[in-house]
Amino acid sequence: MIAGKVVSTAPPLRALRYAQANRPRFVAELGAFVRFPSVSAQPKHAADVARCADWLAGHLRRIGMEGVTTVRTPRHPIVYAAWRHRPDRPTVLIYGHYDVQPADPLSEWTSPPFAPTLRGNDLYGRGTSDDKGQMFVHVKALEAYLQSVGALPVNVVCLFEGEEEIGSPNLAAFLDAHRRALAADVAVVSDMPILAPDRPAITYAMRGGLGLELEACGPSHDLHSGLFGGAIANPLQALCQVIAGLHDREGHVTLPGFYDRVRAWGVAERAAMARSGPCDADLLRDAGATQSVGEPEYSLYERVTLRPSLTVNGIVGGYSGPGGKAVLPSRALAKLSFRLVLDQTPQEIARLFRLHIARIALPGIQLSVRTHLMAQSALVDRDHPAIRAAVRAYRNGFGVTPVFIRSGGTIPVVSLLQERLRTRTVLMGFALPDDRMHAPNEKFHLPNFYNGIATSLWFLAAIGGSDGYHAHDY
Amino acid sequence: MIAGKVVSTAPPLRALRYAQANRPRFVAELGAFVRFPSVSAQPKHAADVARCADWLAGHLRRIGMEGVTTVRTPRHPIVYAAWRHRPDRPTVLIYGHYDVQPADPLSEWTSPPFAPTLRGNDLYGRGTSDDKGQMFVHVKALEAYLQSVGALPVNVVCLFEGEEEIGSPNLAAFLDAHRRALAADVAVVSDMPILAPDRPAITYAMRGGLGLELEACGPSHDLHSGLFGGAIANPLQALCQVIAGLHDREGHVTLPGFYDRVRAWGVAERAAMARSGPCDADLLRDAGATQSVGEPEYSLYERVTLRPSLTVNGIVGGYSGPGGKAVLPSRALAKLSFRLVLDQTPQEIARLFRLHIARIALPGIQLSVRTHLMAQSALVDRDHPAIRAAVRAYRNGFGVTPVFIRSGGTIPVVSLLQERLRTRTVLMGFALPDDRMHAPNEKFHLPNFYNGIATSLWFLAAIGGSDGYHAHDY
Repeated sequence: MIAGKVVSTAPPLRALRYAQANRPRFVAELGAFVRFPSVSAQPKHAADVARCADWLAGHLRRIGMEGVTTVRTPRHPIVYAAWRHRPDRPTVLIYGHYDVQPADPLSEWTSPPFAPTLRGNDLYGRGTSDDKGQMFVHVKALEAYLQSVGALPVNVVCLFEGEEEIGSPNLAAFLDAHRRALAADVAVVSDMPILAPDRPAITYAMRGGLGLELEACGPSHDLHSGLFGGAIANPLQALCQVIAGLHDREGHVTLPGFYDRVRAWGVAERAAMARSGPCDADLLRDAGATQSVGEPEYSLYERVTLRPSLTVNGIVGGYSGPGGKAVLPSRALAKLSFRLVLDQTPQEIARLFRLHIARIALPGIQLSVRTHLMAQSALVDRDHPAIRAAVRAYRNGFGVTPVFIRSGGTIPVVSLLQERLRTRTVLMGFALPDDRMHAPNEKFHLPNFYNGIATSLWFLAAIGGSDGYHAHDY
Repeated sequence: MIAGKVVSTAPPLRALRYAQANRPRFVAELGAFVRFPSVSAQPKHAADVARCADWLAGHLRRIGMEGVTTVRTPRHPIVYAAWRHRPDRPTVLIYGHYDVQPADPLSEWTSPPFAPTLRGNDLYGRGTSDDKGQMFVHVKALEAYLQSVGALPVNVVCLFEGEEEIGSPNLAAFLDAHRRALAADVAVVSDMPILAPDRPAITYAMRGGLGLELEACGPSHDLHSGLFGGAIANPLQALCQVIAGLHDREGHVTLPGFYDRVRAWGVAERAAMARSGPCDADLLRDAGATQSVGEPEYSLYERVTLRPSLTVNGIVGGYSGPGGKAVLPSRALAKLSFRLVLDQTPQEIARLFRLHIARIALPGIQLSVRTHLMAQSALVDRDHPAIRAAVRAYRNGFGVTPVFIRSGGTIPVVSLLQERLRTRTVLMGFALPDDRMHAPNEKFHLPNFYNGIATSLWFLAAIGGSDGYHAHDY
């Protein structure tokens, strides 16, 4: 762990003052950014995603960033910018994503998801924290430097993608094609919660992901369940049987081979996690739950980080309107996602899953599997100099020393940057556990926005060597 | 069984000629009737249901029916009419329903569900067979008599309801409140398939129904499945477990007590069913299936008629749009329907189901049950004189002696008429097994429409005694 005392630094005072003076405008601009329904998963929002990218590119130009380009991909564009006027200093790659999760179910939102609304100290709307608000922290830090000092303390590359929520399908190809333009000494990603407004945290591990669709097909057309019920296979029933069979009573995943490569962690790591991470009660409170499920031999924090898991995200089939309908549907679909840990690969788990499904024989039912997301897990070296810089930055920005935490989430870019560009990533979160990322009434806590901008300013200063930190350490 | 030779009758010749001459107009009028999206289950269609009732009432007035009234109920109106100018003759109650099933999934319709379309000899559209087309058979028979002869051969009461597809919740009260106006010697209901265009059939048994919603509630709000997956209970997962547990591997329903009152049928009944009913291959073909499921000790025809069953009609929960969404939903809902047989009551099965669900302990999950449909099974005496009249009518209308069949479906009115008014019902189907009642691309086979009208004319004549059948037999 990091020593508790504050290191003396050369503070980015003018930029900090600029940021403080412009808070109301920054919030209004974040609102404009959130107003775009840039839902990457839904084809009907493709034009909104593109408009959002254009707005973001224009915004980057206005604040003084250079080389701003909106790069097409087979699906949603990537917004790129660079500022490279410090040949003697390191380069920081700032990654963020301007696409958002679907807003469904719409009826559960207190205010409309794409009409950002301020209630108390929180800005509500889809994407306010995931990830528009958190990436905007860095955008506003860049503006504060460029508009107050006229320069950045480091070289900066911005990589803002529009496909994170669908598994970044075109990011690897983009990284491969633009190695030179993306060359950086360290990357920073802000797309995760800290523990509380006064408990900042640096994430050092994330789970990988594997998103699947499991389809069951039965009769050639929907049938009257009165006339055929009891004799003809029901795809919905089949899905229930298959899904129920994927967990045992204690919550372990029963997919054969699933745990074969899962690493057992030692006493030291687990003890450190118990000290720094959320306790069971914290996790239950954030979830709005009174009871937990899952592997009893692990704490809840361990269950969602050290251990892999499988979640049914949705089932589609039959009649879903009000009242009833006597239908025996011809097909049904389940959306499943695995979260994977170190040494598990989504490719191998997908293979095991297909094998398992192929071995299931249900009369009258054809099962098929489609993959729609694959992302590796990530583990960051806590002793890396850039991580130490991030610790100092949080201490200055939030006034508290951050702790190191694992996340159960998945950010595909982290392992991609490591594999493709050999760039290490600092995971610097500004969201809160109850910000409802992916759920109705998503919000962003504005004090975190303000402290986040200060933290980003301090981080850039620290990487730039303004606090005695040396570039050649990279 | 009925003797094969044709009984000499006094034929309703003028009415038959009228019906034949007006076929194109009859089809056009049926199209106008189908055009109303009178979906009783969906509140957004309440006004359409009301407009459809008004259209039907107007139509009955135009063809010469009397006492036409649109009677309000707490939900959808009942259309009533009567023609009572034959004090010496019996009264026939014609029951039908002008409400229809929801049209979902819309994308699977070849032509829009409420824009009736003729392809070959079939009229496509929601409600063309269930039940607008089949009730219209009788409406057109009434018109043919009234407009050609100027009178009916019997007294007639029309009872056309708008809530059949939601379990006829207000019908019992209506029957109780209007016993005198509804008094009849026999009722006829046409809302079921025959075996084929050249294999007419009289249905003598129907299953009862119990429609339920099973809801699972977990965390207080939707969660990010990456951040909480593996530690917090998933209501969708819970529903899958509960539903999977409701059948054993052989397809028996495992609900404790479910089969306690189910009657075992003797060799004679089962042999008669094997002779007259659809064989396994027929049923598989009509279902568009290659394999069956369910209780192996019964034929498919027996499984869907003699035996009760349980079908999952739909599951709602989590994300159902394109691509994926990393959500762990806070709640999920399953729509289930039981089909029940003689001596089982929906009330008792609902009680057993609630008991069973209350005994299930899933940590972090609250399960709840709502009932939305209850209907008794029905069994008709095949030796009743009105049934014998129906046999003769089919023989004249279709040119073939009908067989007796059981149906797996449920028509709540049959047991209600028996219990409340002591009126026996003749179940006289004109639909086909592949008419896709309740499914996309529902159709009505127009030769059945025409032969049905002839059959209805002969049936009314037979009940009226025009073929030597005596009123005092009732």
